[in-house]
Amino acid sequence: MKVVDSISRMSTLSRMLKKEGKSIGFIPTMGALHEGHLSLARTAKKHTDAVVMSVFVNPLQFGAGEDYERYPRDFKKDEMLAMNAGVDILFCPSAEAMYPAGYATYVVVERLGDALCGASRPGHFRGVTTVVAKLFGIVRPAVAYFGQKDAQQAVIVKKMAEDLAMDVEVKVLPIVRDADGVALSSRNVYLSAEERSDAAVLYRSLAQAAAMIDAGERDAGKVTAAMRRMIEERPSAKVDYIAIVDRKDLLPLDPIAGDALVAVAVRIGKTRLIDNITRKVP
Amino acid sequence: MKVVDSISRMSTLSRMLKKEGKSIGFIPTMGALHEGHLSLARTAKKHTDAVVMSVFVNPLQFGAGEDYERYPRDFKKDEMLAMNAGVDILFCPSAEAMYPAGYATYVVVERLGDALCGASRPGHFRGVTTVVAKLFGIVRPAVAYFGQKDAQQAVIVKKMAEDLAMDVEVKVLPIVRDADGVALSSRNVYLSAEERSDAAVLYRSLAQAAAMIDAGERDAGKVTAAMRRMIEERPSAKVDYIAIVDRKDLLPLDPIAGDALVAVAVRIGKTRLIDNITRKVP
Repeated sequence: MKVVDSISRMSTLSRMLKKEGKSIGFIPTMGALHEGHLSLARTAKKHTDAVVMSVFVNPLQFGAGEDYERYPRDFKKDEMLAMNAGVDILFCPSAEAMYPAGYATYVVVERLGDALCGASRPGHFRGVTTVVAKLFGIVRPAVAYFGQKDAQQAVIVKKMAEDLAMDVEVKVLPIVRDADGVALSSRNVYLSAEERSDAAVLYRSLAQAAAMIDAGERDAGKVTAAMRRMIEERPSAKVDYIAIVDRKDLLPLDPIAGDALVAVAVRIGKTRLIDNITRKVP
Repeated sequence: MKVVDSISRMSTLSRMLKKEGKSIGFIPTMGALHEGHLSLARTAKKHTDAVVMSVFVNPLQFGAGEDYERYPRDFKKDEMLAMNAGVDILFCPSAEAMYPAGYATYVVVERLGDALCGASRPGHFRGVTTVVAKLFGIVRPAVAYFGQKDAQQAVIVKKMAEDLAMDVEVKVLPIVRDADGVALSSRNVYLSAEERSDAAVLYRSLAQAAAMIDAGERDAGKVTAAMRRMIEERPSAKVDYIAIVDRKDLLPLDPIAGDALVAVAVRIGKTRLIDNITRKVP
């Protein structure tokens, strides 16, 4: 596995791979790799000729008072995990190289980024789309892999790629969960033992929502109220949002119909966690 | 010469050309082709393997009350001129295909688009960068050619390509002028005979500025005041702006120093014309 920190070197490697007719599979990450990321890498390994993973904690997608500074970083561990998952090139540019003095260009997807996580994290998705557009420019992947855990991010990145006719296929793979149902997240390391136990309520509330919908409930208010009750029983939990939206345009669904996304964001102590499930309703 | 109106077909052609190892030279235009555009195509022909020209009157870069509806369109003439200039593929998508219902993604270069033309045409450069990013996505050129007449546009597009690590070289070629000094522009067809004669004052005022700077004048206010006096003598002329700025960051230069751009925008009757010269000052 090559480890590359220079943008121009990464760019040259991509150009060479493409010249050789090789397809590049790309997994953009912020490091602190877990099985969610690694499952993306292993899928990329199966379907593309060369797997590039980026590790870049993107300052642009963190707001004031968020956890940019303390976001978990363990490059040596990431390096080993990436290598074992079959990554061919690990690309880890510096923030100064990605956003040099005078940097001025931003990619914005309107509307889709306003609700859900966008409401409590203003500017977050602008940071995501900008860095992903730039990483696509450098890496030039045939396929880029994202996790369904960040459902809104996945929808927005797909929309950006479609709108700007980017020559990349965006694939979204299922959430990977721990045995207690908690969706894998780099931020789970922030949780105390007690908080970790409380964190399991996100998925339990989603499973309850799924059961209600599967049993025929179509009233979004009833489903989200039941979820809220369950979540608020946990001492360290504070709901940021609970939403049932259309999976494609992220607009609220009430009654629940079509291709639905049930999404939650909850603060467990000081840690903001997100999770979601999807439901096809006839 | 192929004429292609489908985005997916253009995309496929680009992919095939790249697979064959051919470099694509790209000239984005809004049609109403003149020698300025054609000189770009002929240069592309010399330096790249396949020349793609787009003809697309981009609604996104026109403001309310501007000339989107009446912007000159003569596709048959453009087709002939492009063919004679050596264009291999003429790409002419519809506005509906470029911006289908629900279109939501925009590329913005901050600061550089605020002054000069950006001040009197809010949103204009957002429209330019967005369409150029999308056209780059579809055409995937090795080299893209722009005219120096739209100096601010050229600076902004270069900045976008650099910031987003787009895999394209942006080349800017000199202004082509008529015998009376008027810079070629698709909008010149709007001018009456009298206005056309007045329009020559743009270049005359720039030539005067060049002479003053070359003679050692470094006071930007003196140079622009002399230009303004000359322009305002013409009955149909109304100055939009006269500016002396740094050629790279477009910030005002006073005293005049370094790599200077002297730029003017003038309304001649109802037609807004722009022109510029550059000066290297030791």
